[in-house]
Amino acid sequence: MRIERMTTEELRKALTRDPVVFLPIGATEAHGPHLPLGTDSLQPEAMADMLADRLGGMVAPPIRYGHHSSTRNMVGTLGVNSDTLRYLVRDVLESLVSEGTTKIVILSGHAGHVHMAALKVAVSELLEEYDVKVMLLTDYDIAREIQGELGVPEDDGHGGMVETARVMALAPELVREPRGSGEFVDQRYMMIPNPEICYPRGFAGRADLATPELGRRINERIADIIESIVRERMGV
Amino acid sequence: MRIERMTTEELRKALTRDPVVFLPIGATEAHGPHLPLGTDSLQPEAMADMLADRLGGMVAPPIRYGHHSSTRNMVGTLGVNSDTLRYLVRDVLESLVSEGTTKIVILSGHAGHVHMAALKVAVSELLEEYDVKVMLLTDYDIAREIQGELGVPEDDGHGGMVETARVMALAPELVREPRGSGEFVDQRYMMIPNPEICYPRGFAGRADLATPELGRRINERIADIIESIVRERMGV
Amino acid sequence: MRIERMTTEELRKALTRDPVVFLPIGATEAHGPHLPLGTDSLQPEAMADMLADRLGGMVAPPIRYGHHSSTRNMVGTLGVNSDTLRYLVRDVLESLVSEGTTKIVILSGHAGHVHMAALKVAVSELLEEYDVKVMLLTDYDIAREIQGELGVPEDDGHGGMVETARVMALAPELVREPRGSGEFVDQRYMMIPNPEICYPRGFAGRADLATPELGRRINERIADIIESIVRERMGV
Amino acid sequence: MRIERMTTEELRKALTRDPVVFLPIGATEAHGPHLPLGTDSLQPEAMADMLADRLGGMVAPPIRYGHHSSTRNMVGTLGVNSDTLRYLVRDVLESLVSEGTTKIVILSGHAGHVHMAALKVAVSELLEEYDVKVMLLTDYDIAREIQGELGVPEDDGHGGMVETARVMALAPELVREPRGSGEFVDQRYMMIPNPEICYPRGFAGRADLATPELGRRINERIADIIESIVRERMGV
Amino acid sequence: MRIERMTTEELRKALTRDPVVFLPIGATEAHGPHLPLGTDSLQPEAMADMLADRLGGMVAPPIRYGHHSSTRNMVGTLGVNSDTLRYLVRDVLESLVSEGTTKIVILSGHAGHVHMAALKVAVSELLEEYDVKVMLLTDYDIAREIQGELGVPEDDGHGGMVETARVMALAPELVREPRGSGEFVDQRYMMIPNPEICYPRGFAGRADLATPELGRRINERIADIIESIVRERMGV
Amino acid sequence: MRIERMTTEELRKALTRDPVVFLPIGATEAHGPHLPLGTDSLQPEAMADMLADRLGGMVAPPIRYGHHSSTRNMVGTLGVNSDTLRYLVRDVLESLVSEGTTKIVILSGHAGHVHMAALKVAVSELLEEYDVKVMLLTDYDIAREIQGELGVPEDDGHGGMVETARVMALAPELVREPRGSGEFVDQRYMMIPNPEICYPRGFAGRADLATPELGRRINERIADIIESIVRERMGV
Repeated sequence: MRIERMTTEELRKALTRDPVVFLPIGATEAHGPHLPLGTDSLQPEAMADMLADRLGGMVAPPIRYGHHSSTRNMVGTLGVNSDTLRYLVRDVLESLVSEGTTKIVILSGHAGHVHMAALKVAVSELLEEYDVKVMLLTDYDIAREIQGELGVPEDDGHGGMVETARVMALAPELVREPRGSGEFVDQRYMMIPNPEICYPRGFAGRADLATPELGRRINERIADIIESIVRERMGV
Repeated sequence: MRIERMTTEELRKALTRDPVVFLPIGATEAHGPHLPLGTDSLQPEAMADMLADRLGGMVAPPIRYGHHSSTRNMVGTLGVNSDTLRYLVRDVLESLVSEGTTKIVILSGHAGHVHMAALKVAVSELLEEYDVKVMLLTDYDIAREIQGELGVPEDDGHGGMVETARVMALAPELVREPRGSGEFVDQRYMMIPNPEICYPRGFAGRADLATPELGRRINERIADIIESIVRERMGV
Repeated sequence: MRIERMTTEELRKALTRDPVVFLPIGATEAHGPHLPLGTDSLQPEAMADMLADRLGGMVAPPIRYGHHSSTRNMVGTLGVNSDTLRYLVRDVLESLVSEGTTKIVILSGHAGHVHMAALKVAVSELLEEYDVKVMLLTDYDIAREIQGELGVPEDDGHGGMVETARVMALAPELVREPRGSGEFVDQRYMMIPNPEICYPRGFAGRADLATPELGRRINERIADIIESIVRERMGV
Repeated sequence: MRIERMTTEELRKALTRDPVVFLPIGATEAHGPHLPLGTDSLQPEAMADMLADRLGGMVAPPIRYGHHSSTRNMVGTLGVNSDTLRYLVRDVLESLVSEGTTKIVILSGHAGHVHMAALKVAVSELLEEYDVKVMLLTDYDIAREIQGELGVPEDDGHGGMVETARVMALAPELVREPRGSGEFVDQRYMMIPNPEICYPRGFAGRADLATPELGRRINERIADIIESIVRERMGV
Repeated sequence: MRIERMTTEELRKALTRDPVVFLPIGATEAHGPHLPLGTDSLQPEAMADMLADRLGGMVAPPIRYGHHSSTRNMVGTLGVNSDTLRYLVRDVLESLVSEGTTKIVILSGHAGHVHMAALKVAVSELLEEYDVKVMLLTDYDIAREIQGELGVPEDDGHGGMVETARVMALAPELVREPRGSGEFVDQRYMMIPNPEICYPRGFAGRADLATPELGRRINERIADIIESIVRERMGV
Repeated sequence: MRIERMTTEELRKALTRDPVVFLPIGATEAHGPHLPLGTDSLQPEAMADMLADRLGGMVAPPIRYGHHSSTRNMVGTLGVNSDTLRYLVRDVLESLVSEGTTKIVILSGHAGHVHMAALKVAVSELLEEYDVKVMLLTDYDIAREIQGELGVPEDDGHGGMVETARVMALAPELVREPRGSGEFVDQRYMMIPNPEICYPRGFAGRADLATPELGRRINERIADIIESIVRERMGV
């Protein structure tokens, strides 16, 4: 259930069950010539809806802006400063807790290093003040755990086979053809002002090998894994 | 067109036309027993879509958290600090400008005094650095300009006849019955820690008199007025 | 009584009566060719002195810098950032409360939107920590409530008939002749880098129709209204 | 000339002469049983008026709140955080410079270590951006340079013989009797939460030996010294 | 060469050669019962000295405080906030650049996620303003690249075989016996207030298998790898 | 004992004795043609080691960056913003206190006005939250108390006879010849963008008259004085 669609009274009643609240954190980011800019929003929102259904939870209003490093100069990446992201998530978490929420799962569609650190700090600050349970993860990392068994190459990355397949399963009308294949060019610890050169074609992986069927399997497996962790760790 | 649904390439092409970009700023806020918490998100997003269609513009990913004063203690109000809102909007505006956007219309569904001041400061900071055109408005204020001629009582307010009618027109399945009538209790300049007492029933106005038809007329009129201002001021 | 003129011992004694403390917040701002830059300081300080006399209260040291938007580029407007204003007022309020003050009335001579929001946030932050009574108002708004009955045109504004009359009553030697008449040019929601074009002559209203007698009546009425609210709301 | 008493037009004209602008920074601070809380405001404002007269300069609206360490817990000390003071002075300086001012003399009535550091940082930040001349001093330090020759004991301090004499010369009606004598108790580098124990009687020095005549001589000598430095360093 | 040991004149002369400057960032952190709290300082400082020798570079004064998450509650972890670390490194980098340095290699002994993100943001901010070359790495990550070929188990971690061996090579007098073996207990995305439970024995890995000889080989290999990257990427 | 050289267990045991912890704050700053840039780090670290030995205390990891005003433009001065210094020291103090430390002596090698104010504010903030004993001093100021009796001229200053002698005693290999003599040129309250003109030769005093013997005596006397204050004030 999306919190936005509930009234005050409906939310009050739902909170008495002490439900898990999923906070989807998306992003607006260049994802190559074949994927939409909202790719990182689509995925965690779909996961959140699916998991809320399975677990009797609720979905908080999504955030659709994240922090971006390597793609920040590409057309279509609309990012915010990492501090802004931290404050935003901190405030939203605090609002959720002040409603009476005690179990929160943050699902981030974007997995950038600094982006995730901002979320981590936001959660840490919350936990210093409130005795609640918070899980922080990116479905991207869960996908990485299982990509081997699903036949996805090791070096699949941003906008690659996994992400393309997942969007093909969730919103096929938003995937453009042809999809092609891209690579990631490592800069070996050099910090550079033009990190987009790491992605000569704007993405990394065999997007051309993605299928809706693979996407459905990945989405399903991600949901299964998160469901299982939430049930175990949060006692749902 | 929603930017989130476009690819890098499609956005790049669209930007060559120097289109108006609408940034809808919603909120998650208690709106009485009859309206959904996302009422303030629904309205500006609908306006943005409508106006982007009429003006060949684009719609940036929506923000769905605002700053709240009087309703901040009510169940369902998920707000952020006014500084957070300012930084968020500032960053998003800067991202849009760095893409090449030169005409931005911010549509806020919430009209709180401090909320709007945060947006105003964010825009002012942007204009100190960039030579672009920005319009900042809340459809709530435009509705107020025309409510007299549409037969809405002068003291209609938060969650009242105007808002109820508009949501009935946009998402009738989210309006609960019965709707009733509420009032605003002025505190005469006293700053109080429990401002929710200003809304004994959670909203102010004759929600019971709202109709989808009235909502459609209001929405249409708001779109007409904004369209006309944008055309005149931004040379679209 | 001005706190600045008291000794430690005198203040300690006065505080045992739990008096109302008035904090006058002025500004240094261009007010057209006829009014002094300190117009917005003069008015609330005079009101504060008058009200402290009537109510057995005290007047805190005045602040004479505020935040300015529309007049910020005019010669003579000496403003501060809205954050600075917020922190300043927050700190002063906290100092007053730490002395043992429990009733504070903030009188702002300037009524700009962002300026008032900064004061509002400062007070809100105070009220989150301390259980005290704070009233926040601008005598400009109170004047607006009564200007109709006193024959002041509806569109009287910054530096207009009301302000001119009030300064003529308080400090006639600071009003220059001729006074003339000015208008406000609305920009219809456009945020502009040169907002001074809203005031082609630097002020808005029939300054030429102002008289000391009108000013005395306005000042008296404002004091009466504030006195009545303070008595009622603060139990003085 | 006080800027607050001028109109936009008068200020514009005066600025064409490139005058020195004096910014008096006062404080509201416990000064023993005999001196008013505004002692640190009275002195620099009087000096500023005197020097503006002598040098054809102008006086900016005074600031009457500073930062306090050792007296912060005493009744009547109304202080602000050192950051707040820094931002406030930084903003006011920037406003003055944006008017076209190129010569500013900051006169602080309070001489606390952290207070002065805040002012120093504010000025340093200004000088990184603007090519203007700024002098920063406290008349307290100038008094210290000459107290020996005027027969004031070496250990005269806060609220002591110098300050008492100066206020007796400037505002005799605000000095209470009897005046007595106080001492400063050094804590030898210990940082303590109750620094008021450094002033068992609330002040330090032979206030009882102060006379209006001595005050006039000190005030005159301070003005002479500052006038001479300003003429030499700022080419007035 | 350590910059601290040079005079102004010697540094000025050295800078004419445009040398690489190494900035070692250490930490003070619990490292199990066998390793000293300064383990993360020892390693990058030794690497920096070795690399400066090989490459004709210089070593900036070391920083010995970092940000810690999982060990933050353990006795001996003296950390700072991630913002503090960011500002500190940002300021030091800016100071180095203002001296004329154009090639900087940051060597961090600690590799925590949020710690590294703080450093990354600091460097990114620098690169937005200055056209210099900066490399950011932790020798911990380089060790990880080569641990397989050196026979270190895959799950070796904080205070484990690699770190113990390295300290045995660098400062054998600081390693305590017995060394034992510890494990890392993964919390699967749960953010917890007591992360020290991830390290039941305070460290992770076969510290008991470490030898000075292994440490020397690891240190040598790390230096080789960094030297090679620096030569290639910075044109030394 | 240096905390960095201890293990978790050793520190835990040592803390049960409630020892004094010395936090040496150094700097990297131009000190004329004869002294190393680390002069201000060398001195307090040596004092801290000596005092920890005498008093059974411990030495926290040193900080080697401070804030600099007058020498900030000289080659070799690597400074940080005063806010950064404040946050850094604040965080380190808080970390020490959270370990259980109750007696902290901060020894700063640099004595700049703004630098010391930053430290003072950091300590004040700590003392508002924790009931611990903190002493803040610079050995430079203690040297000043005794320089007369040791035959050092009154106007000895930065990099002069005292500092040179002290470094000759502590690290003679770092002092360059010839040493010469320098002077300080007072700017009389003018805030200037090029404060290095205050030190035409980069230092102030008769460095040429310094001897290792004098240095040893100064160091010994400083240690004696601090030891005596610490014993008296902290009950060691």
